[in-house]
Amino acid sequence: MRTTWRRTVTRQRAVAWTGLLSLTMAATATSQAPAARPRRVQDTLTSPSIGADGRVTFQLYAPKATEVLLRSEGPAPFANQPLTKADSGVWKLTAQVPADLYIYWYDVDGVAVADPRNNRPRVNMTTVRSLLEVPGAASEFFAERAVPHGEVAAVHYQSQALGVPRRMHVYTPPGYATSGQRYPVLYLLHGAGDNDQSWLMAGRANFIFDNLIAAGKAKPMIVVMPAGHTPTTPGAAPAPDAFARDLLTDVVPYVERNYRTLPGRERRAIAGLSMGGQQTLNIGLTNLDKFSQLGVFSSGWFGQEGAATFAKNNAAVLSDPKVNDRIRLFWFATGKDDFVLPSTKAALALLDQHKIKYSYKETEGGHTWPNWRAYLNEFAPLLFR
Amino acid sequence: MRTTWRRTVTRQRAVAWTGLLSLTMAATATSQAPAARPRRVQDTLTSPSIGADGRVTFQLYAPKATEVLLRSEGPAPFANQPLTKADSGVWKLTAQVPADLYIYWYDVDGVAVADPRNNRPRVNMTTVRSLLEVPGAASEFFAERAVPHGEVAAVHYQSQALGVPRRMHVYTPPGYATSGQRYPVLYLLHGAGDNDQSWLMAGRANFIFDNLIAAGKAKPMIVVMPAGHTPTTPGAAPAPDAFARDLLTDVVPYVERNYRTLPGRERRAIAGLSMGGQQTLNIGLTNLDKFSQLGVFSSGWFGQEGAATFAKNNAAVLSDPKVNDRIRLFWFATGKDDFVLPSTKAALALLDQHKIKYSYKETEGGHTWPNWRAYLNEFAPLLFR
Repeated sequence: MRTTWRRTVTRQRAVAWTGLLSLTMAATATSQAPAARPRRVQDTLTSPSIGADGRVTFQLYAPKATEVLLRSEGPAPFANQPLTKADSGVWKLTAQVPADLYIYWYDVDGVAVADPRNNRPRVNMTTVRSLLEVPGAASEFFAERAVPHGEVAAVHYQSQALGVPRRMHVYTPPGYATSGQRYPVLYLLHGAGDNDQSWLMAGRANFIFDNLIAAGKAKPMIVVMPAGHTPTTPGAAPAPDAFARDLLTDVVPYVERNYRTLPGRERRAIAGLSMGGQQTLNIGLTNLDKFSQLGVFSSGWFGQEGAATFAKNNAAVLSDPKVNDRIRLFWFATGKDDFVLPSTKAALALLDQHKIKYSYKETEGGHTWPNWRAYLNEFAPLLFR
Repeated sequence: MRTTWRRTVTRQRAVAWTGLLSLTMAATATSQAPAARPRRVQDTLTSPSIGADGRVTFQLYAPKATEVLLRSEGPAPFANQPLTKADSGVWKLTAQVPADLYIYWYDVDGVAVADPRNNRPRVNMTTVRSLLEVPGAASEFFAERAVPHGEVAAVHYQSQALGVPRRMHVYTPPGYATSGQRYPVLYLLHGAGDNDQSWLMAGRANFIFDNLIAAGKAKPMIVVMPAGHTPTTPGAAPAPDAFARDLLTDVVPYVERNYRTLPGRERRAIAGLSMGGQQTLNIGLTNLDKFSQLGVFSSGWFGQEGAATFAKNNAAVLSDPKVNDRIRLFWFATGKDDFVLPSTKAALALLDQHKIKYSYKETEGGHTWPNWRAYLNEFAPLLFR
């Protein structure tokens, strides 16, 4: 079959697409008839680019700006650094950048803008930023490598619980389509600034799982990334339990109807970062008939009050003498510099008080994606053992 | 099952996420410890927004800019219109905008930037723009409606033909996961400025198919959207046939191995816009043992020379007395204002010369996504009849 396809490939002469491309883009951008006009400097820039020396160059065409700075979500050596303007109107900065995935944007005289010459966006709940991946040992675990890849589906469904159309993303492991096997499921929740794409765009969850599975370090599993925010009426308080209802009455049943899942709580895990970690605590602990394994990244109940409220409303759960048998994995991690650290401590204190077992890792760093990628990479191998 | 899930939903008190969100975003953006600082005006804007009167308001915070204009890919009533600055530093424009999907960006003193407050990007080959969907009768056919939805998978594979990792997107029709059925396949190719996401982001191919299938107007089918650009060495000419080799030796075999496809040329179609239309002509006509149905949107062989070259290299194909029996559907459409129109005419003249049958529709409009969405909506119902 393969040979047949190969043999009959056509032998057409290639067209120089670059010329047509600039013609097309000029024509579509201005809706004018095409003309052999020269490409403008802003249409020829590559940004960011990584030089032979490994240094990264950012470039932005902004002829009238008086100040251009780089900004980043999370630490970066170029954060808050000024770019320098050349006569061409192009602002430039070249920097040594350690291997990692960075979320950055420009501050152009106070305007926060994604890099217009970078087609790898990072979308969050309200805005769009740009991604820079610097290859190297530190980014190997989430890089797209020559290993078998799972597929990631964008899934649109009508939420019965919320009465609105919703979207989630679902990772199926390599070989899913042809294996005929059933798989355990991790429900992986995003943070308050994010959406259902964030664990992919910024988190690289799909490549992290591809790499772990290829190395035999994690079991093949389905990973479901729902949307954690629910619709609110402007000015009104969020509806209680809205996300929990969507997850439990729509998302999980959809997944179990449409994917080959292994049944039962032993084969279902839930984890999340920040807001998603709080959702994990609230939903996971009160639904141990459905979930047996919990991951809480950079989270807690957000303060003593949140922990106290949970304790008041869920005394039976916390005092269940079998709770430690029912929770097969209860994994926490938070960074030393994370503003959420006191909330994590409050959560752990409540668990200590009720003699509920967990593992906790306090890492370097703050409330940032480098930590969440690393946490997922460490947590996933522990699942479904 | 459904009832059980519903009954046991947790009853946790909701947290006011808005407060935590601004705290989180402020903290992550600056990597500082959190403080109860007020939200900045640029973090509170909603743009674009559609008012009760149906008018669209664009807003951009740019306190030091001297001129802010709206730009669009394709025609738009707001194209090239200036925004007006308020004392707050926020620039604003309100306009009546007919129902459709628009690709727009700001020109801030000559800097082309995506709307930083719009998290619906349109990514193309080199840049990122913003999407505005205005609901109404004219956008119904590609709107996300309350009908069963297919799933769209992002598929990463290692191209044996090209020796690089590649990505495609694959739409499976509603019910695919549970039907056990096999489906015909449309290979749908993008244009020179685009990538494998463009038929989804700008083209809304998934919703167009959802709506057509729900209405019984199109047969349920798998739609494969490969990446049409191939790696080039800077300065070198594109490798001949690189895309054709990737498609025929990697993409099609991957799809046939991993999806439940119906076998044979009768159940395989290929279509594309602009560059993708030329690829359709080149690959489709020379591989009629694999494809029986062809769609060419806003395309041709790009000039007399391209048509002449094809004719010279493929005399046997064009003169095959059975060619009209083998091509089950050969569908062209180009806009009256499209700069590609002469190329379409040259292609049709070549087909006329060889008495090869086709259908051709000359529409209003130019080389733009509104035409390509409409063409797909008209072409898809004709497939696999």
